[in-house]
Amino acid sequence: MFIEAINHRAVNQYVYARDKETVEILLETKKDDIESVELIFADPYDFKGDKWQYNTIDMTKSGSTKRIDYWKISVKPEFRRLRYGFRLTDTEKTQVVFTERGFYDTPPADIGNFFCFPYLHELDIFQAPDWVKDTVWYQIFPERFANGDASLNPDGTLPWGSTDPTPTNFFGGDFQGVINHLDYLQELGITGIYFTPIFKAHSNHKYDTIDYFEIDPQFGDKETFKELVRECHKRGIKVMLDAVFNHSGYYFEPFQDVLNNQEESRYKEWFHLWEFPVKAEGHPNYDAFGFVASMPKLNTSNPEVKKYLLDVARYWIEEFDIDGWRLDVANEVDHAFWRDFRNVVKTAKPGAYILGEIWHDSMPWLQGDQFDAVMNYPFTNSAVDFFAKQEITAEDFADNLTGILHMYPANVNEVAFNLLDSHDTPRILTVANDNKQLVKLLYLFQLSFTGTPCIYYGDEIGMTGGGDPGCRACMIWANEKQDQRLFSFVQKLIQLRKTIPAFGNKGTFRFLAADNESNTIVYEKATVDEKLIFVINNSKNKSKVTVKELANQTAEDLFTDETFTFTEEAAISVEPYGYFCFKIS
Amino acid sequence: MFIEAINHRAVNQYVYARDKETVEILLETKKDDIESVELIFADPYDFKGDKWQYNTIDMTKSGSTKRIDYWKISVKPEFRRLRYGFRLTDTEKTQVVFTERGFYDTPPADIGNFFCFPYLHELDIFQAPDWVKDTVWYQIFPERFANGDASLNPDGTLPWGSTDPTPTNFFGGDFQGVINHLDYLQELGITGIYFTPIFKAHSNHKYDTIDYFEIDPQFGDKETFKELVRECHKRGIKVMLDAVFNHSGYYFEPFQDVLNNQEESRYKEWFHLWEFPVKAEGHPNYDAFGFVASMPKLNTSNPEVKKYLLDVARYWIEEFDIDGWRLDVANEVDHAFWRDFRNVVKTAKPGAYILGEIWHDSMPWLQGDQFDAVMNYPFTNSAVDFFAKQEITAEDFADNLTGILHMYPANVNEVAFNLLDSHDTPRILTVANDNKQLVKLLYLFQLSFTGTPCIYYGDEIGMTGGGDPGCRACMIWANEKQDQRLFSFVQKLIQLRKTIPAFGNKGTFRFLAADNESNTIVYEKATVDEKLIFVINNSKNKSKVTVKELANQTAEDLFTDETFTFTEEAAISVEPYGYFCFKIS
Repeated sequence: MFIEAINHRAVNQYVYARDKETVEILLETKKDDIESVELIFADPYDFKGDKWQYNTIDMTKSGSTKRIDYWKISVKPEFRRLRYGFRLTDTEKTQVVFTERGFYDTPPADIGNFFCFPYLHELDIFQAPDWVKDTVWYQIFPERFANGDASLNPDGTLPWGSTDPTPTNFFGGDFQGVINHLDYLQELGITGIYFTPIFKAHSNHKYDTIDYFEIDPQFGDKETFKELVRECHKRGIKVMLDAVFNHSGYYFEPFQDVLNNQEESRYKEWFHLWEFPVKAEGHPNYDAFGFVASMPKLNTSNPEVKKYLLDVARYWIEEFDIDGWRLDVANEVDHAFWRDFRNVVKTAKPGAYILGEIWHDSMPWLQGDQFDAVMNYPFTNSAVDFFAKQEITAEDFADNLTGILHMYPANVNEVAFNLLDSHDTPRILTVANDNKQLVKLLYLFQLSFTGTPCIYYGDEIGMTGGGDPGCRACMIWANEKQDQRLFSFVQKLIQLRKTIPAFGNKGTFRFLAADNESNTIVYEKATVDEKLIFVINNSKNKSKVTVKELANQTAEDLFTDETFTFTEEAAISVEPYGYFCFKIS
Repeated sequence: MFIEAINHRAVNQYVYARDKETVEILLETKKDDIESVELIFADPYDFKGDKWQYNTIDMTKSGSTKRIDYWKISVKPEFRRLRYGFRLTDTEKTQVVFTERGFYDTPPADIGNFFCFPYLHELDIFQAPDWVKDTVWYQIFPERFANGDASLNPDGTLPWGSTDPTPTNFFGGDFQGVINHLDYLQELGITGIYFTPIFKAHSNHKYDTIDYFEIDPQFGDKETFKELVRECHKRGIKVMLDAVFNHSGYYFEPFQDVLNNQEESRYKEWFHLWEFPVKAEGHPNYDAFGFVASMPKLNTSNPEVKKYLLDVARYWIEEFDIDGWRLDVANEVDHAFWRDFRNVVKTAKPGAYILGEIWHDSMPWLQGDQFDAVMNYPFTNSAVDFFAKQEITAEDFADNLTGILHMYPANVNEVAFNLLDSHDTPRILTVANDNKQLVKLLYLFQLSFTGTPCIYYGDEIGMTGGGDPGCRACMIWANEKQDQRLFSFVQKLIQLRKTIPAFGNKGTFRFLAADNESNTIVYEKATVDEKLIFVINNSKNKSKVTVKELANQTAEDLFTDETFTFTEEAAISVEPYGYFCFKIS
């Protein structure tokens, strides 16, 4: 038995409250080393004489990678308290009992040895707002979605889509443009919009805030924004804004005050200045986003700065009824700030959603006291590498995704913000070398995977573009230039997600197969009542896939409505870049 | 290479801020599998062209157990940001690079692969008050320490020490008794007192609070308590009280109100009631501590209850200048409560200390937002099993302690509350089967180990007693009944801890040897300037120990002041239950 690879600790994804009565427990073992695992568990105060009255229950293998087997179990402790350990049996029938104090041959008599989940408090459950897990997001970069009010055009605004985007040009996108196209979004089926920054700023991307309490005049005024939110809500669409709290822009008044008054500035504690005079050129002599002099880092440990930013957070919720905040460069701001931010936001609107921009492992922010979700770039990277770039094998793809699903509690996974691209990356069709068949597979996977998918504006009609600024082109509105078949495909997927519970977050995801030779994957989404089996051929060759879970079953393909009656062999022929979603009846 | 046993994630003890400029990183590998580890690291924005300008530095093996090698390193990132990975070389010279996205042959070009420590914020550092790491604690059970004011004796008070303690008898211990004996404590050298509960309660142990704002009348009044705190502070002794916030006592007014008024009680939301009528007999029909009907669990998610308890926390700090709170059954109260508790306590007194009673792995409470320390029962168990009970081998003991030291950040370890026993366990001399030589070794180890030691009243003069109530006997004050030699030994250890930096928390602890046959251990405490080597013979046989770190060194034994000049062999003869602490000159 490979004792060194047996992994569990009473923290993070390994033990957590799934809901107010359920505790979920995860154990990791070396791949193919362990044949079965039993959970040994009971209330810690349940004794007969001096003998602890524990129960046992089999754990289920919830996934495997090349290196690790994952074992999971849910239990409902009657008194909300739990002590537990694991009895593992390997392929040679050797048994060990794994406890907090190490390994034993049999369960130790002293209950102090066991792992401890002390008490299930409703307040401590990681709980994103209920609506989030059913949301399909759509990301809008406001300068480039639609120009609905030419009177607001900044000086030098170019005709819509007349040229490629550059870091500095303007096309006059605005709120009225978004309002004019809400029917389009409703038709697509999305239920949440994430707007990149809308506050007064200098650049076209608005990540260099000048005033956090003002709308950028090129987008409209506060009344128009209120109308936009109202119109979204009417259509069942939530509105999320972008909070750039890590750094301000160069023209932010307090920073200008520092530049003008230097050591005499009353705002000098608002930033992380190293020396005077402060020089906002070249390599800055103060903390900044990266080394970008025009984005001075805000000192969020200064109570004045904190109060200012928390007031901002509250203001846009209370006055404009927005539904969420996306937090830019979230992991470079202190945890203490985000804890207070959460309190302020949830007090202002209990159903408000908090999404952090973090590209890395985000466990420290996802413990219930800070964010509801993070942008799931680990998902993005794997999906892009497998489908769009064809750079990793089917098995590596399945391994990565299985790893991601076992990296966080299930509560976290079901609201993970799953994107394929954004204003910070090349567009997915461009990454896929203009192969729309691959993009369809990406959408199929994204929209059937655990979490909440986000579509970057224009991707759904086949827009292309390289990295920033290429990915920030004007939305194409001319019908004949839009790929209507791609639009319909995405629309259909959103529809399936909304109408078939197992397709969305009610279904539990699990890989059934990943074959490197044929580059095919097979996965399951299942509820207690419903089972869907997805088969995807991520290659230019026709492939024959055998799915033993379909043996002797009758199933309907959700895309063609065709009914299949499988034999014992359960072999399916899949076209190049072909796919099925079988609903077993 | 045993890839499955390579362990690191950018959380908890694996990467943390040691101070405002230092980040510490830990990696685990299978014992004896890896020969060397280099950290690959740099600021994430440090590029030349598109090439990340990383550095490398060797990591140090900071400890080993039978299964795991631990590797550590400290780095000081110039701009407080860090991306990093590991290059591991095994005994066969095979190399792998370990990153957040898995294993590579060479460092991947995309910096996104690397682990991320996004930004070192001073506010997020785990930081207990400075004074704590130099504190030697003394635990007092007030009913049994000294009776200094007979006029306060409760009805039926028995003559001091006239009989064995029972769950219900009283001996009249009080504050005046403590005040009268502060010189004794000062002579011993302790610098902090932890008092078990002093608030108005029904029992002799006072864990069943009646009124959190009142002193129990048997102990004295508020004036006497103020004097006690003043007298302690005069002598450089800190005062910590016991906060029993998980549950109240049966006679707590709100609970009485529930029993009297049942469904009409305005306090019915103060508890976790299952049904009406509430029955406080036998197996209670409400949440309680364990299933103890007289200790109803408080509903800390009720804002009224929360406010009440936070007011309590503030009151005793603001009005009486206490220095810390020990939190009873701390892990069964919600995290949200403890976060607010920390804010209230640290606002009232920034230097106040917060100690949780948790017997298990306590990582979730030790992230800087909740507790400063927990009662280190994993330390207790191992020390008791090895020395007092002689039940585990020297190697298992060293493994356990090495594991404990690598379970938390170093900041956490240096304030861990290391106890040998308490009012909840048998006294250490009784556990050691009355063998005082073993108890001396326990004190030597406890007082030279990382963390803050706590002495349970009377242990230092050789008191005995079994589990509760046996361990709660009256303090023995008759000189001739006190073991003065044991007292002097403990006094000497405290003195060494205070005067020799490496002996206390300035020294880094590391096992040099643990031999099962002779039952001896050898360990080092070292600062940059000073090295101490401890040799302990935990057996009844004389033993010859070879310590290669002493080869050709001259060293002074801190206990006998004798100077040793070691040869190349560096062999030392150690008496049964003998010990040395060599200070290398």
